[in-house]
Amino acid sequence: MSFTKGKLIYEGKAKKIFTVQENENLIVHEFKNSLTAFNGEKKGEMLGKSRVNQKISSLLYKYLQKNGVPTHFIETLSDTEILTYKLEMIALEVVVRNVAAGSLTKRLGVEEGQEISPPLVEFYLKDDALGDPFLSDAQAIMLKLGTEDDLEELKRKALMINQLLFEIFEDMGLRLVDFKLEFGRDKDKAIVLGDEISPDTCRLWDIVTGEKMDKDRFRLDLGSVEEGYKEVLNRIENVLEVDS
Amino acid sequence: MSFTKGKLIYEGKAKKIFTVQENENLIVHEFKNSLTAFNGEKKGEMLGKSRVNQKISSLLYKYLQKNGVPTHFIETLSDTEILTYKLEMIALEVVVRNVAAGSLTKRLGVEEGQEISPPLVEFYLKDDALGDPFLSDAQAIMLKLGTEDDLEELKRKALMINQLLFEIFEDMGLRLVDFKLEFGRDKDKAIVLGDEISPDTCRLWDIVTGEKMDKDRFRLDLGSVEEGYKEVLNRIENVLEVDS
Repeated sequence: MSFTKGKLIYEGKAKKIFTVQENENLIVHEFKNSLTAFNGEKKGEMLGKSRVNQKISSLLYKYLQKNGVPTHFIETLSDTEILTYKLEMIALEVVVRNVAAGSLTKRLGVEEGQEISPPLVEFYLKDDALGDPFLSDAQAIMLKLGTEDDLEELKRKALMINQLLFEIFEDMGLRLVDFKLEFGRDKDKAIVLGDEISPDTCRLWDIVTGEKMDKDRFRLDLGSVEEGYKEVLNRIENVLEVDS
Repeated sequence: MSFTKGKLIYEGKAKKIFTVQENENLIVHEFKNSLTAFNGEKKGEMLGKSRVNQKISSLLYKYLQKNGVPTHFIETLSDTEILTYKLEMIALEVVVRNVAAGSLTKRLGVEEGQEISPPLVEFYLKDDALGDPFLSDAQAIMLKLGTEDDLEELKRKALMINQLLFEIFEDMGLRLVDFKLEFGRDKDKAIVLGDEISPDTCRLWDIVTGEKMDKDRFRLDLGSVEEGYKEVLNRIENVLEVDS
């Protein structure tokens, strides 16, 4: 069965979405080289990021699917493109935190590096104009982003994904500090993991050296952004490609 | 039984707290004339505010107590001072919203004046240095501000108070848009309403004209701040002093 990439229907900060001419339930997700931070205020470009993030994200989504987490991922089409199910996206960023970092330390004064146990699940409204504000469950319900049951399901799924990812990153010598997920509904209205998981959307610290191996290298001008991303890919390939 | 006002143990933006020499479980709460907004960035003074707010708050606390809500209020000592139980305060501002206004409209883009049904209960961390950040339940639990059960009790109490206040303000021709509560624990560890309820801590709109009758007159430079507060007191006295 062959697929023809159709027209561009969405362009975000890190991805382009295209229709699939033969099947309206499928889309092509194309990874971009652009790097953005602080709600788009800081912009950059990393040659080869699209390829690295496609490989990382695809390996992680295959691993999650093998372990019972439904995701939108179907197959890799090229170095920078994947075929996925089309989801009706829920306008929430679901953040899971195992260790205090980033906005949590700034907003709530928690010291960076402090372990968070049990892990914290947070919801942010996906709205660039409002700066993706943090939401309580009650606010998310008020904004009709989901019912109480939907939010509980998102939390359960996020925590299950966290457990699976935390273990696999630990095997790679990486501490999964926090990460962001996006979910949507498939044609049967089931909640399914969408978007991507990559050093753009995770904080990953080397367990031995404490070195940041993720987008914070770009956010904080730490240098060697590309090397950090490639090192994460190398470690994932060593652990996950041996397994599969 | 007579009480001697002891030493100043706390001074906030709108109140001073003094010990009571004869009884360590009691305190004197003195209302101040100062007006502050935007986390203390805007400052003002309103001669007579302490007297007006003391009267409003005392009448409302008596009304709440008569209707089964435990509060710290014992009795009025002077125009600007009340005797209360000493509580171990919980470092949360508990906000109840019936109508969208203020930070909710700015943060989440909800239109001012939109009815919120069911009413929304929000928690904010009382921390001036951090700007009183908004908290989810999970964050409040992480910060050890209370257990899940404590937070549910705070929400239940806040909604009960909301129902009682909403009705009484409606009788006065005022729409209770939103308000802030603070709770603490008494010597038996029971959760009790503390602090004050006044036009400093509520948004009150005239039901007929829509006019703002609260601290927004100061925040937004609408003028006639004192007249607004005094009008609220007049209406409360008409409704509550007749009842009692």
